[in-house]
Amino acid sequence: MTCEAFPSDCQATLTIDLDRIITNYRTCRSLAGGTDCAAMVKADAYGMGIEQVAPALYNKAGCRNFFVANLAEAIKLRRHVPDAIIYVLNGVFPGHVPYFIQHRIRPVLNDLDQIQLWAAVTAADRPACAIHFDSGINRLGLSPQETGAFIGDTTLQACLNIALIMSHLACSDAPEHPLNLTQLQNFTAITRHFPGIPASLANSGGILLGPDYHFDLARPGLMMFGGNPSPRPLPDGIQAAYHISGKVLQLRDLRIGETVGYGATWTAERPSRIAIINVGYADGYLQVFNNCGQTAYKGHMLPIVGRVSMDMIAVDITDLEVTEISPGDDVELLGEHITLEMASEVSTLSQYEILTGVKERYQRVYK
Amino acid sequence: MTCEAFPSDCQATLTIDLDRIITNYRTCRSLAGGTDCAAMVKADAYGMGIEQVAPALYNKAGCRNFFVANLAEAIKLRRHVPDAIIYVLNGVFPGHVPYFIQHRIRPVLNDLDQIQLWAAVTAADRPACAIHFDSGINRLGLSPQETGAFIGDTTLQACLNIALIMSHLACSDAPEHPLNLTQLQNFTAITRHFPGIPASLANSGGILLGPDYHFDLARPGLMMFGGNPSPRPLPDGIQAAYHISGKVLQLRDLRIGETVGYGATWTAERPSRIAIINVGYADGYLQVFNNCGQTAYKGHMLPIVGRVSMDMIAVDITDLEVTEISPGDDVELLGEHITLEMASEVSTLSQYEILTGVKERYQRVYK
Repeated sequence: MTCEAFPSDCQATLTIDLDRIITNYRTCRSLAGGTDCAAMVKADAYGMGIEQVAPALYNKAGCRNFFVANLAEAIKLRRHVPDAIIYVLNGVFPGHVPYFIQHRIRPVLNDLDQIQLWAAVTAADRPACAIHFDSGINRLGLSPQETGAFIGDTTLQACLNIALIMSHLACSDAPEHPLNLTQLQNFTAITRHFPGIPASLANSGGILLGPDYHFDLARPGLMMFGGNPSPRPLPDGIQAAYHISGKVLQLRDLRIGETVGYGATWTAERPSRIAIINVGYADGYLQVFNNCGQTAYKGHMLPIVGRVSMDMIAVDITDLEVTEISPGDDVELLGEHITLEMASEVSTLSQYEILTGVKERYQRVYK
Repeated sequence: MTCEAFPSDCQATLTIDLDRIITNYRTCRSLAGGTDCAAMVKADAYGMGIEQVAPALYNKAGCRNFFVANLAEAIKLRRHVPDAIIYVLNGVFPGHVPYFIQHRIRPVLNDLDQIQLWAAVTAADRPACAIHFDSGINRLGLSPQETGAFIGDTTLQACLNIALIMSHLACSDAPEHPLNLTQLQNFTAITRHFPGIPASLANSGGILLGPDYHFDLARPGLMMFGGNPSPRPLPDGIQAAYHISGKVLQLRDLRIGETVGYGATWTAERPSRIAIINVGYADGYLQVFNNCGQTAYKGHMLPIVGRVSMDMIAVDITDLEVTEISPGDDVELLGEHITLEMASEVSTLSQYEILTGVKERYQRVYK
């Protein structure tokens, strides 16, 4: 973002492993039984950097379909994957059609108003679009009533070049939830009215629900980055593509009874030694980790003590040898040893929130 | 950040009122009995944009002292306030001194190692620095043992140009907490060893603890942006400087028994109408607001129903007239009606976390 030079060790670091994202994407495709996979790269590719992630997937993994949430994200993405298919999940609004046309972006049309708007403006050229049917999440997409009306309106359909029909699962992270089967049945019934048009239902969790859910295009997001969308063990071949490390700013000895941090919420019950690390909630490491988060250092787990501050945390290093850790050393906050699943479990944040919650202040390193 | 053109209404919007930040800063100075105030602008000015906030405070409010957390933030800030005094709270590390010198940045020296490093390299020119004494938070700053050693080492002191001595309060948000008085006494005792050198203790909360805590320089952060650092009512003259609004993407009618969103966690108990808004946890609006957050629209409070998604939320609009709200309309998530205090209370996030948690995806408007 800026071109100033500063020493690389004055910030905490978010390292993103593009090769792992590519491998994870390929694993998703294989878990989907060879079904083609689009890449969900909304929210700056789940915080991992759309500018780097999207071209890596396009050039090295053959990914051709990308989904983002809004038009601004799509227009930014277009620069980085000039020939990819880009869908905008929020759909189209009055005044937006020329931007879609100019940048060759496809709207996901979510209701009859959006469909009619798109059809009216584009009837001559019929650029491609997707239609989103709500099969039970009650969020975006044509309602059952609108779905019926649209299926019956062949005149309206004839104005459109429908490249994809899609729906979205509400409970794919809970394989036993009855809503999964209901949505599958609803969507399957809809697809019968659109023979020959590719259909898409599964997000990461949906991929793991089995072949019935795969249709023609899956849409993995979380699993591409190494998160686990299911209560079951992470599938083989999916690896963490993220690593957050903070630097030790200072070490400090505490007597019994001394407290640490804002609100004095942690008290030393033995002579203790703490390290102050340069990551705080302004980096996305929130106070839900107060007195319960874990960090990893040279095979040791170092617990967070006290409240997370805006710019720093304290970890208990009493069990380390005194010479084992010094200012400037790196401590892992998320990665191989502190997985998204572990961080999610202690914090009650979802894996998605932890991943997309990473803030701009990290130094970003791509490998 | 980018130069592409896209329609302004395809994103949610974070509006930052620079005039209010200036007024709030002046109010802080007045609450501090006229004591000079530095501005805490770490973490991108608490998420509000250091590039806009710092020059506004410098040029329009006469603020001359700025604090950031790390050297990278300081070097970026230097471009925007070329003549201001800039302090780096994390202090100095091996290899960093030339950057401090080149950009005329002052380190806040937090332990004897940092002091000796700075003294050794800068003995000839003696550029200004600050010394941070830990008076009881047990985070950064010289420990009591180091403080004693430093006070006794007049040779070391003579190598330094100490422009400021400072400490930081652990419990200023709890006026009755006994640690406040302990820290005040500890810091006051230290200041006696440094006659003539300006001293600083109070953050926003410390300003409200009264004149004993003000010393020569206060360091407001949260209150400058309109947050309340105290359990007592927000002082007169402090106003919200932030406003987050989302746009209605779609409206949807629900029958009794239908559920909304991921996990189907909200069920319509009456025929209901919901609006889908284009803000989600990837914007910083986290799942702690599931089924408990509030939004404001034309004098109505519209509650969040179901889980917050990555890119959207659903709000219950059943009590509005059908024609009263349409796709494209703006709904307030944070601002005049949904204050930081209210959002903090329902979510258990701190006001600081909500403010610094705003993400890059918002369209930013400064007024």
